[in-house]
Amino acid sequence: MTKAQPINIAIVGVGKIARDQHLPALAKDGDYKLVAAASRHGKVDGVPNFESIEALLAASPEVEAVSLCMPPQVRHDAARAAILAGKHVFLEKPPGATVSEVEHLKALAAEKGVTLFASWHSRYAPAVEAARSFLASARIKSAAINWKEDVRRWHPNQEWIWQAGGFGVFDPGINALSIATHILPPMFITEATLDFPENRDAPIAAQVSFRTSEGTPVAVDFDWRQTGPQSWDILAETDKGFMVLSGGGTRLEVEGKVLKDEKETEYPMLYRRFAKLVHDRTSDVDLAPLQHVADAFMLGKRNVVEPFFD
Amino acid sequence: MTKAQPINIAIVGVGKIARDQHLPALAKDGDYKLVAAASRHGKVDGVPNFESIEALLAASPEVEAVSLCMPPQVRHDAARAAILAGKHVFLEKPPGATVSEVEHLKALAAEKGVTLFASWHSRYAPAVEAARSFLASARIKSAAINWKEDVRRWHPNQEWIWQAGGFGVFDPGINALSIATHILPPMFITEATLDFPENRDAPIAAQVSFRTSEGTPVAVDFDWRQTGPQSWDILAETDKGFMVLSGGGTRLEVEGKVLKDEKETEYPMLYRRFAKLVHDRTSDVDLAPLQHVADAFMLGKRNVVEPFFD
Repeated sequence: MTKAQPINIAIVGVGKIARDQHLPALAKDGDYKLVAAASRHGKVDGVPNFESIEALLAASPEVEAVSLCMPPQVRHDAARAAILAGKHVFLEKPPGATVSEVEHLKALAAEKGVTLFASWHSRYAPAVEAARSFLASARIKSAAINWKEDVRRWHPNQEWIWQAGGFGVFDPGINALSIATHILPPMFITEATLDFPENRDAPIAAQVSFRTSEGTPVAVDFDWRQTGPQSWDILAETDKGFMVLSGGGTRLEVEGKVLKDEKETEYPMLYRRFAKLVHDRTSDVDLAPLQHVADAFMLGKRNVVEPFFD
Repeated sequence: MTKAQPINIAIVGVGKIARDQHLPALAKDGDYKLVAAASRHGKVDGVPNFESIEALLAASPEVEAVSLCMPPQVRHDAARAAILAGKHVFLEKPPGATVSEVEHLKALAAEKGVTLFASWHSRYAPAVEAARSFLASARIKSAAINWKEDVRRWHPNQEWIWQAGGFGVFDPGINALSIATHILPPMFITEATLDFPENRDAPIAAQVSFRTSEGTPVAVDFDWRQTGPQSWDILAETDKGFMVLSGGGTRLEVEGKVLKDEKETEYPMLYRRFAKLVHDRTSDVDLAPLQHVADAFMLGKRNVVEPFFD
């Protein structure tokens, strides 16, 4: 069996996440050849750079796939242009600004016969599958999600996250939800409170109560004001003991016994998954995490809190 | 061919909408026999009344279908109980408090082999199908939705509509969206502003910009502060003239020429549709209108306006 040709890929949106994660993952992956980039501001060394995806698509017929790493508010038009040009599309999370527009992209990709991958990087954290197996074997009595980090440390001067539609604390929170919807039974929101700084259009904290389809309560606490140690934990009380999935999915403990503790390699795994989807000519667009965020905004009580300054 | 037996139906939630619409529609429809009712407050003459759906289901095995007319915040548990008891379920609009929970009910109904009908009464207004045909035959340049009514006149003292998750002006607005998503191409929100009275947890007005999948702009103006003449209109500028669908879907004009003008009979038509779904053992759960509302809350900028008192 001969190895398939590398996929000619382009990066669109050369910001922090592209530099921190996408470009290093692509550089190490023999399934891909990076052939172009487009961005309003950033540039990638060693490949042609364009000002817009439209310019890139027009000038680079050899591109087979694009990876979109810009803010969600502008992702739809780029994805639509790429799909209409017959390119496979990798979407950074969250996959769009609205659920409806991603549903539309999903239908469009099916129509054009290209792959659409709505990526949820946290699902590929090393201990997530072990947590899933453990929970599938147990009766869950209650669960809790604590995702608390310091926005100044992880999102310095990212103005778009504070704008309407920028998701606010749900930008990291959706990572927790992408794990929870993968390892817990189907769940839905019964109550939510969203804390909006009085000078911002997106929440800095949120408390969300879910119930699973089996009636199990899941208490969610998202907070962007946590200094000191950071919390990215999912906890579950079960008939087989107390489970702690911590470190954003890197470490699994049950009743204090460590079952898994590994360094994360999320983005390399995402790109491996995308290559498989492209080769299989299928898509993977699970919207449950984004749906919960939209539901939280619809159902949530708005609470105004003190102003936030970067 | 013999006429099918009437469907034994129960009404759950005996409030304003049940009295104004559901009970009169059922009384005239030979496809149904009303056999019970459940409500915390209201009662229906001539049938056994129960305090809860659980009591009704336990005491009335002859019930084949239930129609849920309570506020959306408490609809899920009632629908779930009914589906698990093997009953067909008719949901008043909106079908639930979150999109996720209705997706769950949809899956549950399929699993249990019962009919679930997420009803959108405005889609059954007499001129809607004619508007749909007209728009399908034309090129749409732009569209506008003006849904402006006096909340004091139509929703007196309905506290739940002002609570978080009560939808506010999207409660009538979702009627407009249920027509728009039926007669216009797929569309998605690009921008929204929601006006919250400073003493309420739901918006009193909303301005929402959509674009259709073909890029056509659709401007939506919802307002609950309109005294005097009320507006329930969908307008479209097309290459075949200017279309006005007014009166909540009862009257269609193109270039000033009246093509349809009839009295509405929405609820009788909804119940005819539900009977057909039950007989065919199928479901009808189109969530697009509710999805747009969730998206509007997620994407929308919140604007605080003067307090509202009933």
